[in-house]
Amino acid sequence: MNLAEKYNSRTIDRYLPTDTLIFALGGLGEIGKNTYCIQVDDEIIIIDAGIMFPDENLLGVDYVIPDYTYLIRNQEKIKGLFITHGHEDHIGGIPYLLKVVAIENIYAPKFAKALIEKKLEEHRMSGRCNVIEINNESRFTSKHFHIGFFDITHSIPDCLGLAIQTPNGWIMSTGDFKFDLTPIGSNADYQRISYMGEFGIDLLLSDSTNSAVVGFSISEKQVAKSINEIMEKTRGRLIIATFSSNVHRIQQIISAAIACDRKICIIGRSMENVVQIARNLGHIKANDDDFIDPTLLDEYPTHKLCVLCTGSQGEPMAALSRMANSSHRYINIIPGDTVIFSSNPIPGNQSSVNGVVNSLTRLGANVITNSMLNNLHTTGHASQDEQKLMLQLVKPKFFMPMHGEYKMLRMHADTATEVGVPAENIFIVSNGDILVMRDHEVYMCDSNTIQTDDIYIDGTDSSGIATAVLKDRQILSDNGLVSVIVTIDSRTNSILCRPNIVSRGFVFVKEGQTLMKEAELVVYEALRKIMIQKTTFGEIKNTIRNTLEPYFYSRTHRNPIIIPVILNHKDAIALMQANRNRY
Amino acid sequence: MNLAEKYNSRTIDRYLPTDTLIFALGGLGEIGKNTYCIQVDDEIIIIDAGIMFPDENLLGVDYVIPDYTYLIRNQEKIKGLFITHGHEDHIGGIPYLLKVVAIENIYAPKFAKALIEKKLEEHRMSGRCNVIEINNESRFTSKHFHIGFFDITHSIPDCLGLAIQTPNGWIMSTGDFKFDLTPIGSNADYQRISYMGEFGIDLLLSDSTNSAVVGFSISEKQVAKSINEIMEKTRGRLIIATFSSNVHRIQQIISAAIACDRKICIIGRSMENVVQIARNLGHIKANDDDFIDPTLLDEYPTHKLCVLCTGSQGEPMAALSRMANSSHRYINIIPGDTVIFSSNPIPGNQSSVNGVVNSLTRLGANVITNSMLNNLHTTGHASQDEQKLMLQLVKPKFFMPMHGEYKMLRMHADTATEVGVPAENIFIVSNGDILVMRDHEVYMCDSNTIQTDDIYIDGTDSSGIATAVLKDRQILSDNGLVSVIVTIDSRTNSILCRPNIVSRGFVFVKEGQTLMKEAELVVYEALRKIMIQKTTFGEIKNTIRNTLEPYFYSRTHRNPIIIPVILNHKDAIALMQANRNRY
Repeated sequence: MNLAEKYNSRTIDRYLPTDTLIFALGGLGEIGKNTYCIQVDDEIIIIDAGIMFPDENLLGVDYVIPDYTYLIRNQEKIKGLFITHGHEDHIGGIPYLLKVVAIENIYAPKFAKALIEKKLEEHRMSGRCNVIEINNESRFTSKHFHIGFFDITHSIPDCLGLAIQTPNGWIMSTGDFKFDLTPIGSNADYQRISYMGEFGIDLLLSDSTNSAVVGFSISEKQVAKSINEIMEKTRGRLIIATFSSNVHRIQQIISAAIACDRKICIIGRSMENVVQIARNLGHIKANDDDFIDPTLLDEYPTHKLCVLCTGSQGEPMAALSRMANSSHRYINIIPGDTVIFSSNPIPGNQSSVNGVVNSLTRLGANVITNSMLNNLHTTGHASQDEQKLMLQLVKPKFFMPMHGEYKMLRMHADTATEVGVPAENIFIVSNGDILVMRDHEVYMCDSNTIQTDDIYIDGTDSSGIATAVLKDRQILSDNGLVSVIVTIDSRTNSILCRPNIVSRGFVFVKEGQTLMKEAELVVYEALRKIMIQKTTFGEIKNTIRNTLEPYFYSRTHRNPIIIPVILNHKDAIALMQANRNRY
Repeated sequence: MNLAEKYNSRTIDRYLPTDTLIFALGGLGEIGKNTYCIQVDDEIIIIDAGIMFPDENLLGVDYVIPDYTYLIRNQEKIKGLFITHGHEDHIGGIPYLLKVVAIENIYAPKFAKALIEKKLEEHRMSGRCNVIEINNESRFTSKHFHIGFFDITHSIPDCLGLAIQTPNGWIMSTGDFKFDLTPIGSNADYQRISYMGEFGIDLLLSDSTNSAVVGFSISEKQVAKSINEIMEKTRGRLIIATFSSNVHRIQQIISAAIACDRKICIIGRSMENVVQIARNLGHIKANDDDFIDPTLLDEYPTHKLCVLCTGSQGEPMAALSRMANSSHRYINIIPGDTVIFSSNPIPGNQSSVNGVVNSLTRLGANVITNSMLNNLHTTGHASQDEQKLMLQLVKPKFFMPMHGEYKMLRMHADTATEVGVPAENIFIVSNGDILVMRDHEVYMCDSNTIQTDDIYIDGTDSSGIATAVLKDRQILSDNGLVSVIVTIDSRTNSILCRPNIVSRGFVFVKEGQTLMKEAELVVYEALRKIMIQKTTFGEIKNTIRNTLEPYFYSRTHRNPIIIPVILNHKDAIALMQANRNRY
């Protein structure tokens, strides 16, 4: 039996206004920019508004967000944005969404609320909408929706899943989750989850990030034990890098440091922010005098210090990378230092992490990274057995794996069949696909999809970057650019001097000197031919491109971006004078 | 912090008639003879009545049962015996219990009920009590108790846990369990278990058998996959040994055989019985013509055959051992046969299993046993993560690990503290200890215990064997016996002839000849001395023992059992004549 043939086999032609529609603007077929929508007639609820971090092909792109066109067009239907937890792939898109869509209320659990408020403040958007705190006990009711929430464990405090009653049936969305049987901090609400399972969930949307990982994930408490053991054994200064959002981990490290009589020094802006917020909210318990300012580091013996810092992903500007480069303002790595990575490299970051590890080691530090043996880190996402447990507790009639690349969604679907969900009741969905729930039955709509696309954001520009821009950046990064400056007199239709060519990132200047000289002549000859007749600037530019592109390719096998610059005679005088000596 | 100091720290002097008492006659500090009791004033309920299989020190003992004295004395209070499932360590004691205690109703799930009825029939005790079928939906109510049941997974069909409402609070008992997230056959009722957790369980009694095993146990579905794979690859005859009670496993093997177009031949009495019962109850689905009689084995080509047999523990009289000895009536192992052990050796059975494996291999069979790599077997008991999950679902206020040796109970207690049960709310209890539940609080009673002891049963005698008998068997097996026959005339107080000594299992006859001759003289001299005065038979016997024990020990460093036999003159004539030639 080929399971894949059975998935998505229940289809429907078109949907009715009375149907419940489930679709994603982001988060399916990818890791990040989670933005799920549920719509009944004139009401839409949005679950999460995340960004995605770009892969290395997206040059100069800081974030990717979904195309919000559908929400812009259906603005008046939006009844609320529900946030499951405070990770960037669930809240990072909020400022960009709010710029284009008016949303009155954002509902978020406590810690996420604090992070969202900080984010809106940084974007000078405070007051643009209400951020309303929700928890396990909260209820939301609108014309078509009744929503309840349940506690779940993940790698950040205050995570919620949603149970959504619609006129066509119940939908449960897990949010990001793992089942940590011995958690630090808040616990999953097994009782409520299975109560709703008993009550009857028609459609489950469940986190697929770790669908390929067999077994049960390691408990946060096991990680705490391992960190304690190393802390007790270590003699010199201890520097620990971890994810700033992993507040429970940070609490464990702080507690271990206090127990070992070490002062804690927090380094890195995001780490400082999170520790501040988490202490305000009571997620991190410590006294002011457990911490010291980085300026005072030299006043304590090394074995009395624990530095907690950012940079576990080898991010070039983060604290740990600066230490590795010997360019950190306060910390010089010295022999005897122990550096712990309480983290795993996110795929794509392995080589930068590796670079940092090597540099730290070269400076004399003892560097300890996470491995199967020492349990210095654990994931925040459910492995296969936890996914099975969720399916066992919820016993959904229909199932849609969410949060993950295609292969992850597919593996999660296969896992669900093992637990007993019929393959024909499972939907592997792409962004923009529409699931239709009608009278407790779910179908895939095979005639309609919602417009979805990737919108690229860089730090200075919040309106999005065109795909063409990125294509140029790609070419620039691979082939460089050649700029051709031609001076003409448009009144006489004559070339006033031989073209001037400058290049960047194309060929090394000295080697290229002859090449460029020849190219200038090639352009000059080509232009002379066409300028016998009256020509437009456009024709001149095209001629330059069409002449140089094959010329450069034949000589170098590269395709630099060619930028013709045409100076008309009025502007040309200065240039002519500058070039006087050359011709 | 030393956890052990905190366990059992809540104590109480004495209990009141209104209290709920929880105690075990068997099952704590040992694996087997599970017999737990809950009493409120004039009502007792019993949970399970198991046997224990003896360890190798208990020579000639077939089973061990608990001392039922307390139940005999409180016979009229017993409101029912509740059976969680059909394994021998939970039902095996029933015939022995019923011999000494009148019990009106035994409540048991379907499959256990069938096994109990078969057992009572074999003991000619059918009709001695009612065996009433219970399931997930059943309820039991008496003056002080309300009992509900929940489905749980284990290595036999139809397993139930109990939730017991008493006037002082709720008690939950898991029975034997594992959480199999992808089970074959019946599933655990996660919803009901966690509903009761939400409702509020005061005291949880949970299975500790696999407390030392980390992680989550392998699913029965994984084992099924592995068996399927081997079945598909195997060319010749296939012989599979497994536990006859593991009906779901047997179903999987049968299904795989049918899929591979092999006829199934069931061999071994317990396997035949269980398959018969399981087919009647619908637990095993197959047609009559999927099976063949062992007499017809030769009529099929080897690659069309799958033999399913007993003997996975290397039991000397079981089918597989007979095949290994080439003494089986129907099956001769031939090169090309593949023998699969879908089982693990129970501790103590390793060497006999090993012997069988070697013999089968020597006969040319390809023998495959379970390992980490091939997953041919899985346990029926919860590993640490499953124990944690149970604790997470139930969230008990107080916890008493049950079913297991002391170290297992202790590890389960430690696990519970990791999940968040306060150490002072955990009780590590021995058979006969009394836990007292009063108004939703639990204490250990430190003034009273219930009489408990091991009662030994051998096959032919169902009234129990005295511990002294076993001690003798132990000495006999280690040192042998020496019988001293002395012939006297009690009227004249004279020894009529030199003592005659025979021995068994003490020294090799030829080597011992001189020793025995000397011993006879030593006894003779000793008796002569005391028989100067009037002596009793007792004095004579003691003299013989007291003389020979140090004599033999000094000469052989062994302590055989010495059995003095005194013949009075009337009986002595025949013996004298027999010995005439010797003196």
